[in-house]
Amino acid sequence: MTLVTDPTAPRIAIVGATGVVGTTLAGLIEDRGFRYREVHLVASARSAGRTLTVEGREYVVEDLEGFDFSNVDLAFFSAGGSISEKYAPAAVEQGALVIDNTSAFRMDPDTPLVVPQVNAHELDKRPVSGIIANPNCSTIPLVRLLQTVERRWGIRQAVVSTYQAASGQGNGGITELHEATRATLQDPDDPGPSERFHPSLSFNVIPSIDRMLESGFTFEEQKMLQESRKILGLPHLDVTTTCVRVPVINSHSEAAWIECQNVVDREELVRLLTELPEVTVHDKDAHGAFPTPRTAGDPNHVHVGRIRVAPHNPRGFWLWIVADNVRIGAALNALQIAEALTDRGVV
Amino acid sequence: MTLVTDPTAPRIAIVGATGVVGTTLAGLIEDRGFRYREVHLVASARSAGRTLTVEGREYVVEDLEGFDFSNVDLAFFSAGGSISEKYAPAAVEQGALVIDNTSAFRMDPDTPLVVPQVNAHELDKRPVSGIIANPNCSTIPLVRLLQTVERRWGIRQAVVSTYQAASGQGNGGITELHEATRATLQDPDDPGPSERFHPSLSFNVIPSIDRMLESGFTFEEQKMLQESRKILGLPHLDVTTTCVRVPVINSHSEAAWIECQNVVDREELVRLLTELPEVTVHDKDAHGAFPTPRTAGDPNHVHVGRIRVAPHNPRGFWLWIVADNVRIGAALNALQIAEALTDRGVV
Repeated sequence: MTLVTDPTAPRIAIVGATGVVGTTLAGLIEDRGFRYREVHLVASARSAGRTLTVEGREYVVEDLEGFDFSNVDLAFFSAGGSISEKYAPAAVEQGALVIDNTSAFRMDPDTPLVVPQVNAHELDKRPVSGIIANPNCSTIPLVRLLQTVERRWGIRQAVVSTYQAASGQGNGGITELHEATRATLQDPDDPGPSERFHPSLSFNVIPSIDRMLESGFTFEEQKMLQESRKILGLPHLDVTTTCVRVPVINSHSEAAWIECQNVVDREELVRLLTELPEVTVHDKDAHGAFPTPRTAGDPNHVHVGRIRVAPHNPRGFWLWIVADNVRIGAALNALQIAEALTDRGVV
Repeated sequence: MTLVTDPTAPRIAIVGATGVVGTTLAGLIEDRGFRYREVHLVASARSAGRTLTVEGREYVVEDLEGFDFSNVDLAFFSAGGSISEKYAPAAVEQGALVIDNTSAFRMDPDTPLVVPQVNAHELDKRPVSGIIANPNCSTIPLVRLLQTVERRWGIRQAVVSTYQAASGQGNGGITELHEATRATLQDPDDPGPSERFHPSLSFNVIPSIDRMLESGFTFEEQKMLQESRKILGLPHLDVTTTCVRVPVINSHSEAAWIECQNVVDREELVRLLTELPEVTVHDKDAHGAFPTPRTAGDPNHVHVGRIRVAPHNPRGFWLWIVADNVRIGAALNALQIAEALTDRGVV
């Protein structure tokens, strides 16, 4: 189950190891050469006992119920909000620092909400709650672009419509989209299964992600507002969104209208975005006209194109953003938090 | 080819009769009991000679090249912009009144651009150009909702992101989406054919419809601004859009953020939208939570849901709009123009 690879590196646990975020995280740990002393793969009883490979070595998945976090320095949680609510505080109690991918603790004032490219300073010390929250998958690419815009021109409002992939509902979401699509191709009137997506996502778009709130907005839409404010440290930032599920396997897209306090110069905007770390700007002929989920390129970058200032309102501009929601929006951001923590010697 | 059904009714021609809009128009003529004296089904040489059925009677499709419009009172054109540019003026010359579904004449000052529920008064007399233009498929549902909002609260700006179906590229677009999707289901790395959509639309979204303009906006996006202004008679109306193709067979969706001059009351807004003709409001439990392309219901209605005023900016609200782009966005609007013309005795 465990293996000493570096005696000075942290002992880590991946909770939700068999899910799409967990397996992607394991792959990224290898790709990026993240050092660890031991790794524990942890999941619910249903998946415990399965064997997974990390860096060429086989591990048996351990049962979360009864798992002892006292030998873990850093625990990644991506097994759903209710699992994090129940087990993350216990893991902290036992001495682990938790990086949580769910929405359970994001708005907790004692829990920093971190996108390392934006607010890594939050990682200078161990958080009061013992938990660092990873933001929502649609929020992360947006705030990575908004910070520089806010500093240069001041944001009056951001109006964002999303095009979110099936992988946001995990491997089960991907499987359901495949099955539902097959059913419709055989019989156009058959929408196929619709357990994870309601109604069926087969050749359909669904303007409803996560639960509906009393305000009329969905929880997903509220997250994008509240989390953007918290990450950017702008409590009055105005971000309003419609979140829509689309029949794409992986990578979320966003059409973002940003209206600023001041007139925006397109060339300067393109330059500022190009200077951002791990962002690929698709502008005219440089990188092709625009990114799409299937053609954007490097999955570890935020891709942005269709950058255009409105002729009739030069304070406003559009961005078309594409980012791998499992990587940028979850596993990679979580790992980059861990990298920042080890760089700082916090773990 | 022709049949006398009503000696007082107009003689009509459907140019582009074998396309998705043409066949839908023929079906709607039957469904709605539109009276005509004769009908001619017309298409390019490639489709001429085929047999089509209208109201249970078989017609041989006639070749547009050489077709004589002098025996036609009303000609519907939906065979593409270049066909309309070439043949519509000739049809007018020969005495027909043209209802054109393409973008060829929409911005011509002598050609009215008509959505009968919005500006039917434009149909009181025969237009100077002899042509009445049918607006873009995404513009029609939007302006049908915006007019009442403008009158009640005044519109500061409308920010719209679209989710447009494959049928906007005709039967060929639908076939390509099916084929491309089948290819990807067999091999995840195979995007399948991408002649009509670039890149492939299979499990993808493409932020590019119609050609790219020097401004950085696409022609589709520019149409939504210019056409909305013309139809509503508001030359300074601010509508800004990102137009995106999604892997849906039929029916366009739009996420529209409308910011008004004045504070909007949600209940009044819902009531005003409910009072609009041929609009179905999906609000909370009345008609289900929200419409989607596959579940909206009556394809001859504009469907609107997710109606919500922003808590932090009560001058702004979101609408989620779904409308059958082939019917509402083309064939039905064209037929309703014809109905209004015959009601007024213009033809």
